[in-house]
Amino acid sequence: MKTKKMLVSAVLLATCLMTAQAQRRNEIQVPDLDGYTTLKCDFHMHSVFSDGLVWPTVRVDEAYREGLDAISLTEHIEYRPHKKDIVADHNRSFDLCRKQAEKLGILLIRGSEITRSMAPGHFNAIFLADSNPLEQKEYKDAFYEAKKQGAFIFWNHPGWSAQQPDSTKWWPEHTQLYNDGCMHGIEVANGPLYMPEAIQWCLDKNLTMIGTSDIHQPIQTDYDFSKDEHRTMTFVFAKERSPEGIREALNNRRTAAYYRELVIGREDLLRPFFEKCVEIKEVSRNEKGVTLSIMNTTDLILKLKKTAHDTSLVYFRDMTLKPHTCYSVRIGFDNGIKGGDLNFEVTNFIVAPDKGLNYTLKL
Amino acid sequence: MKTKKMLVSAVLLATCLMTAQAQRRNEIQVPDLDGYTTLKCDFHMHSVFSDGLVWPTVRVDEAYREGLDAISLTEHIEYRPHKKDIVADHNRSFDLCRKQAEKLGILLIRGSEITRSMAPGHFNAIFLADSNPLEQKEYKDAFYEAKKQGAFIFWNHPGWSAQQPDSTKWWPEHTQLYNDGCMHGIEVANGPLYMPEAIQWCLDKNLTMIGTSDIHQPIQTDYDFSKDEHRTMTFVFAKERSPEGIREALNNRRTAAYYRELVIGREDLLRPFFEKCVEIKEVSRNEKGVTLSIMNTTDLILKLKKTAHDTSLVYFRDMTLKPHTCYSVRIGFDNGIKGGDLNFEVTNFIVAPDKGLNYTLKL
Amino acid sequence: MKTKKMLVSAVLLATCLMTAQAQRRNEIQVPDLDGYTTLKCDFHMHSVFSDGLVWPTVRVDEAYREGLDAISLTEHIEYRPHKKDIVADHNRSFDLCRKQAEKLGILLIRGSEITRSMAPGHFNAIFLADSNPLEQKEYKDAFYEAKKQGAFIFWNHPGWSAQQPDSTKWWPEHTQLYNDGCMHGIEVANGPLYMPEAIQWCLDKNLTMIGTSDIHQPIQTDYDFSKDEHRTMTFVFAKERSPEGIREALNNRRTAAYYRELVIGREDLLRPFFEKCVEIKEVSRNEKGVTLSIMNTTDLILKLKKTAHDTSLVYFRDMTLKPHTCYSVRIGFDNGIKGGDLNFEVTNFIVAPDKGLNYTLKL
Amino acid sequence: MKTKKMLVSAVLLATCLMTAQAQRRNEIQVPDLDGYTTLKCDFHMHSVFSDGLVWPTVRVDEAYREGLDAISLTEHIEYRPHKKDIVADHNRSFDLCRKQAEKLGILLIRGSEITRSMAPGHFNAIFLADSNPLEQKEYKDAFYEAKKQGAFIFWNHPGWSAQQPDSTKWWPEHTQLYNDGCMHGIEVANGPLYMPEAIQWCLDKNLTMIGTSDIHQPIQTDYDFSKDEHRTMTFVFAKERSPEGIREALNNRRTAAYYRELVIGREDLLRPFFEKCVEIKEVSRNEKGVTLSIMNTTDLILKLKKTAHDTSLVYFRDMTLKPHTCYSVRIGFDNGIKGGDLNFEVTNFIVAPDKGLNYTLKL
Repeated sequence: MKTKKMLVSAVLLATCLMTAQAQRRNEIQVPDLDGYTTLKCDFHMHSVFSDGLVWPTVRVDEAYREGLDAISLTEHIEYRPHKKDIVADHNRSFDLCRKQAEKLGILLIRGSEITRSMAPGHFNAIFLADSNPLEQKEYKDAFYEAKKQGAFIFWNHPGWSAQQPDSTKWWPEHTQLYNDGCMHGIEVANGPLYMPEAIQWCLDKNLTMIGTSDIHQPIQTDYDFSKDEHRTMTFVFAKERSPEGIREALNNRRTAAYYRELVIGREDLLRPFFEKCVEIKEVSRNEKGVTLSIMNTTDLILKLKKTAHDTSLVYFRDMTLKPHTCYSVRIGFDNGIKGGDLNFEVTNFIVAPDKGLNYTLKL
Repeated sequence: MKTKKMLVSAVLLATCLMTAQAQRRNEIQVPDLDGYTTLKCDFHMHSVFSDGLVWPTVRVDEAYREGLDAISLTEHIEYRPHKKDIVADHNRSFDLCRKQAEKLGILLIRGSEITRSMAPGHFNAIFLADSNPLEQKEYKDAFYEAKKQGAFIFWNHPGWSAQQPDSTKWWPEHTQLYNDGCMHGIEVANGPLYMPEAIQWCLDKNLTMIGTSDIHQPIQTDYDFSKDEHRTMTFVFAKERSPEGIREALNNRRTAAYYRELVIGREDLLRPFFEKCVEIKEVSRNEKGVTLSIMNTTDLILKLKKTAHDTSLVYFRDMTLKPHTCYSVRIGFDNGIKGGDLNFEVTNFIVAPDKGLNYTLKL
Repeated sequence: MKTKKMLVSAVLLATCLMTAQAQRRNEIQVPDLDGYTTLKCDFHMHSVFSDGLVWPTVRVDEAYREGLDAISLTEHIEYRPHKKDIVADHNRSFDLCRKQAEKLGILLIRGSEITRSMAPGHFNAIFLADSNPLEQKEYKDAFYEAKKQGAFIFWNHPGWSAQQPDSTKWWPEHTQLYNDGCMHGIEVANGPLYMPEAIQWCLDKNLTMIGTSDIHQPIQTDYDFSKDEHRTMTFVFAKERSPEGIREALNNRRTAAYYRELVIGREDLLRPFFEKCVEIKEVSRNEKGVTLSIMNTTDLILKLKKTAHDTSLVYFRDMTLKPHTCYSVRIGFDNGIKGGDLNFEVTNFIVAPDKGLNYTLKL
Repeated sequence: MKTKKMLVSAVLLATCLMTAQAQRRNEIQVPDLDGYTTLKCDFHMHSVFSDGLVWPTVRVDEAYREGLDAISLTEHIEYRPHKKDIVADHNRSFDLCRKQAEKLGILLIRGSEITRSMAPGHFNAIFLADSNPLEQKEYKDAFYEAKKQGAFIFWNHPGWSAQQPDSTKWWPEHTQLYNDGCMHGIEVANGPLYMPEAIQWCLDKNLTMIGTSDIHQPIQTDYDFSKDEHRTMTFVFAKERSPEGIREALNNRRTAAYYRELVIGREDLLRPFFEKCVEIKEVSRNEKGVTLSIMNTTDLILKLKKTAHDTSLVYFRDMTLKPHTCYSVRIGFDNGIKGGDLNFEVTNFIVAPDKGLNYTLKL
């Protein structure tokens, strides 16, 4: 009966592949910067091969449907609660995804999570060649191995309450890892967690800002896509859509974290990024003022708040530009002025802790 | 360093339990029948322990959130594509779920899927004592073992195109299984599949009608709950909310399959069920007619279509009663009549292939 | 104080215009036919100027947001329940919308609803020059006036239960209107109402098939856009996007009604329309069969059902192609065949009462 | 033909009433305070009788569907852009709604909006006996008339950018109105507008806090109910569900504004309100800590943030309790403590500008 059984399997397999492909991709519409393409990446997630709750290929399917370009499955090295049932080495999760990733055009980056108590806590090493040697008794040896392999290493959820119960602190161990060249970035956002302290550390120490989902559940359990929610992720401004392109951008800190309504990144990146998000046209002008049409061409919400300005220029106090929506904005001229500086803060484009992007429109 | 690592694990575990509990249960609002409670059950689903894509406990969480009362994880006996990585016997999936099921109040029924090519195709055996002995070379031996254990056995997706490419046929092998007491029910609906032929077989052969999800993906991948979709399931009209209550009801064919907008079952069950779904009040009456208020008190849609009637009674041709919505219905009296029979078919309460429930309201 | 009050008004007005523009347009993605552009049109709706419940400009805003190209506000001539409060002639509703329609790029067609009891019931006359002369004692005079103005006239909701309580009948009055050149089309779908009888009448008498919303409420009260519902409408296959383009297409019956999941139209239009809805590629082929990739490039659902065929060609029984989704389809070759005709019916492309579009794919 | 026309009207009317009733009410689930029932009220909205875009009865239907208890249609006295077409006095809007409000059980409060440029800006007067005498040349006379009629008068959107272009200021005119007994409350939230300055004014001057929608569009155009959005409204803690009950509560400042995720009100009301929102049970306790189960029994989100505390008590830093969801919360005991004060701020229960409700749970 062996032949018959194999036949059953073959039929089932054919059906499974069909199902796997019947997916709709929803592209995330955000602009490119001049000379760079904006890749949507998630470098932190789990499957049943560590403490996640889905088969690894599900992560590829989810990434495809959500319009991601690149992912890294970062199973815990030291924490594998299913190991009684799942017998495999630390590379297995990556290997199982390769075919599906290739088929759906998702860039797959090999990574692992070094999982230690505080300090130093949890770190992801991505762009690894082999995850297995990261299993080390001493945490430093795991970092040195990752560094030896040329990995890009970042600190995960520095504000995680289970490890930092009262405030988000930088420990001496972090100084040492940083000095040893074993820390290249920090998560400023992780799933539902936002860590403004980490923004400042990235600015001060020239580290790369990262946003990740750290997803364990099926993604829809944690995010309600019917409410336009999106997973926490990293925008990578890359010279090309390839693993090498991503690596070069990470090395040069050309990233922004995308967390809920916030885009978190360096001012020199978010300024041109904002400019590409809106199309502003002058509709009419007379001595009483000017009417602009402002179109938000992206999936992002843009929240503007008036800042210090010449009060002869009369305009909105706050303004929310919804995705893909066009607004007519009237700016009044008082006291005989014929123009001026329209100053505002894009309050959800975060360039430092509690600080949005300041912008001036010359009229 | 062992202590430290264990501490990490303990912290992670605490967090996981918290996450697991942070779930909202959405009760399915349908009526009970007199003397019975309506249990919402799904007796067909898979996890990574056969060809499913989630950890088994995810199925318990999903069931809790969707308002189910009972589930059965029915891993394939003969088809285990992940067996290179997952090393476990056929009972493991059930055992892994017990604790979470108990915590969330989900009734967990031990089951397995006998997975053979046609004929006889795939069958679920539920209420098993031990799944392991079902691994047999000859399919009949698997059925005999299930029968020996006192299992309730039903034929899965008889209309599955991969096994029945052109029409839904009953094979001699099914006659034999039926005669041998190895077939007690048939799926009339399986996931997106609806099989009217199976309704007739259940009526003719006194078998129990079953609806199941046969879910392999995370449930939200196949069902869009934001659009009020629900998984295909079985309503079990049980004397009590317990495994024994379910078994007694299955034995006595007190079930209905709930598939998309359809409720599929025996007329003697669906008639009182329909009556409990609506509250009808006479609002006013004079010689020109009567005004009724009809309230649909359930999560179900109710679709009414006028049937043959005395044309002196003038009323709606079609009427859709949306969930939890109240309607004012006017019935006119022509030619001096003072009442009559308001006849209609509840077109989505299926009591035979292509036949809805006929109903008469005396006015 | 007059100056001050006027200032208030001016400020309020500026705000209103801004609000009115802050709308997101959702284009309806369906294909064009060769030589024609597919315009999405709704020729039947009401405002407070008859028995509707919104100010007329709301209809323009709704049309913009829903991706419509053209609308006609068709207030009842004979039924104006708000006339105690609203004092205006029959053209007022149209005139109030002109500016907003021009601003948002919506084509506005002047129309009115001739509102009589059965027979002949309700008719819309669109492409009128002046609605006022349609107010006539005798219904025929209203039709003659509309015809004199060169209007396109169609019968509304012939299956409306309030006027046709038991079946959808054609009355002698309709024969006369038809013979008099006063009937050019019929609604085959109106809001939630579908009237297959009208399809046959259109085919037999060479009339244009129309689908309309007949909306009275704010549109979101009747349609749940979060569930991807759409208003009932007419696809017009026009030579150009202009009132003249629409008129020419209506005259030549180049329309399809879009009602729920159904597209209802003439076979010679729906066949090329279906072909433009899908992209089919051969992925691989050997002696055992062929694998196709089928992409549904539209917002429409496409439901395929196998029809009579050479059983040596083994393929799906039913297949649902969701919007913007790609499917991998395997067709098996049995008995040594090397190809054949893959026959199916597109069951939701209606070309006659209860009849979908039959299609053959040569392999 | 008059008889026939009337017949048509009667049929149409019957249909309209049916449609109007076919609505589903979604109750807003928030707790009552001891001795009081929580009424959901909106005292600021418009119809076509001023500058709104719907027929007045639509406001009643919307209120019913959204689970409101009471509304007031507050047409502008001085701003009636549709008056060329709509000829009616200032009471007409209220009168047109009475029947539908009674049928659906909505409490209807007569009101009007005094609409002046700043200062004093716009004010609502509700619980009026007759709106017509409010049409006055001098704004003070309008207020005096409202006061004479015993109205409850509140200042609308003090932070409206069109009237307060740079900051939310209190003018001398407001002092005078306040001193004259012509100001009893202030809107702290209006539609999408939140005005923390107004909270402080209410606290300092013993005024009632109000939240309103100020809706002009069909409600679904401004709020996306599929995303669980709700209109801005006022919770009124009333002794009884009646206009008198509402008036007594407004007079005694027993209100809270419900704006997006915020509940804004006096601390002495929000403290017991919060206590009724959650069910807290001790699940287990040993020397290492205690496990609580916390159930959010409401439709509200509850956002908790740890405040100053004994660090031997180890617990969450932030915690979000989603609606109708149960959480398991672990509190650790360090350094041999056996209990302590779990201190947190409910950050979305606003009791003063930028200040949430502080709460302590004794363990």
